[in-house]
Amino acid sequence: MELTVVKIGGNVIDDKAKLSSFLEAFAAVEGYKILVHGGGKIATDIGRKLNIEPNYVNGRRITDEPTLDLVTMVYGGLINKNIVAELQSFGCNAIGLTGADGAVLPATKRPVKDIDYGFVGDVNSDNVNGTLIKTFLQHGLVPVFAPLTYDGKGRLLNTNADTIAQEIAKAMAQFMPVELVYCFEKKGVLLDAADDNSVINSMTIADFNELKEKEIITGGMIPKLENAFVAIDKGVEKVIIGHADELSALISGKSGTCIR
Amino acid sequence: MELTVVKIGGNVIDDKAKLSSFLEAFAAVEGYKILVHGGGKIATDIGRKLNIEPNYVNGRRITDEPTLDLVTMVYGGLINKNIVAELQSFGCNAIGLTGADGAVLPATKRPVKDIDYGFVGDVNSDNVNGTLIKTFLQHGLVPVFAPLTYDGKGRLLNTNADTIAQEIAKAMAQFMPVELVYCFEKKGVLLDAADDNSVINSMTIADFNELKEKEIITGGMIPKLENAFVAIDKGVEKVIIGHADELSALISGKSGTCIR
Repeated sequence: MELTVVKIGGNVIDDKAKLSSFLEAFAAVEGYKILVHGGGKIATDIGRKLNIEPNYVNGRRITDEPTLDLVTMVYGGLINKNIVAELQSFGCNAIGLTGADGAVLPATKRPVKDIDYGFVGDVNSDNVNGTLIKTFLQHGLVPVFAPLTYDGKGRLLNTNADTIAQEIAKAMAQFMPVELVYCFEKKGVLLDAADDNSVINSMTIADFNELKEKEIITGGMIPKLENAFVAIDKGVEKVIIGHADELSALISGKSGTCIR
Repeated sequence: MELTVVKIGGNVIDDKAKLSSFLEAFAAVEGYKILVHGGGKIATDIGRKLNIEPNYVNGRRITDEPTLDLVTMVYGGLINKNIVAELQSFGCNAIGLTGADGAVLPATKRPVKDIDYGFVGDVNSDNVNGTLIKTFLQHGLVPVFAPLTYDGKGRLLNTNADTIAQEIAKAMAQFMPVELVYCFEKKGVLLDAADDNSVINSMTIADFNELKEKEIITGGMIPKLENAFVAIDKGVEKVIIGHADELSALISGKSGTCIR
């Protein structure tokens, strides 16, 4: 059976009604499926109340110890478990996990070079426990991953959700055909950032390199696409990037940017 | 194989060093095992910072909506996932769950009679998914339960950890011999509350009724023991109540109060 790995970002998580209709669409996806969610503003809002001010270096959030506790609470608890409870109400037998659960996503604390990112984990790709994830899928479970990993020495680590989705998709590609869907707030990769209808329907690595050079693709879209091409390179059949409102159209190929 | 279900309370969770040595002892327990944890002061402390004041009626905390979010974050996220990461460091393949994960512990929001307890769940005992828990155990996983259940309509619910331990023990008794261990801050059920060495080694339901009538057993020990006798009545082989520092002695029968 085919597996669809879907990554959903913070902007949908921050909007209760949008999240609910997204989860209903996700529950209706056929075949094996896995959801990976990001964080959103909720963590920042709760952090502010707890006097944990976000600390960014080069656009990357630094995960100090209070921030690690904050994301453990908010990503691993509040967001993850509410998504699970809501999916259960749509008849989808979700199970909420971090990378520590079942030793699924072992990681290494990012080494300090120019910047100390704090408790940020780089996934040990060779040790992702795809066998256990396969067992869960075969038992009718739908894993829902929070963007947290662990170091094997007792520490949780903060890991980018796009990366987690890519690592899981790669590991599962050993066992079954895998499709990876990155949902965000645009209809796909745009030729003209000002025109929501300028979606690029399909893209090769050559196209990407050209568009990057011409500075048509910039900013946060670059690491997202780099993640996508790594996944393809490691056996994922296709990666689709598109709007969270259009999950079923993305999966059926009627919308979004498709990368093969 | 025999299953040991261990419940650990808030006083151990609040003390990092105590929790760590408890988890090391738990990781060393042989056979199938499951851990159920309570809350502790952490939730109250974080709640205070978030301006969520605890609200008690008859010694029971009322779970309003902000409190439900708080316990979801703290029990389901911060405490549960840190326990999982620490157990992994002791070579114990833990998986952190709430009752919503895998639809394991369906519950019903407690009906409002004299008191509205808010989002508190009474477990639907007949629908506890022991089959899935058995599958996890057979795959070498060690489930770690936060004291949260769900209503099947999208809501998480707050449920007493002693009750969750009892419900899981009862459900698993259909499949294998089960021992239930309640760890707390005393060496067992005491004949004299002022004397820590007056532990009652074993107790029947007749003993319990007599000691309750004589007001030797009072307060929070009554529901704990009632939980224990319900478990015995439903096929659990024995229930042991004792000190969290003595887990291995409790399991080997060298310490604590044993109820059969």
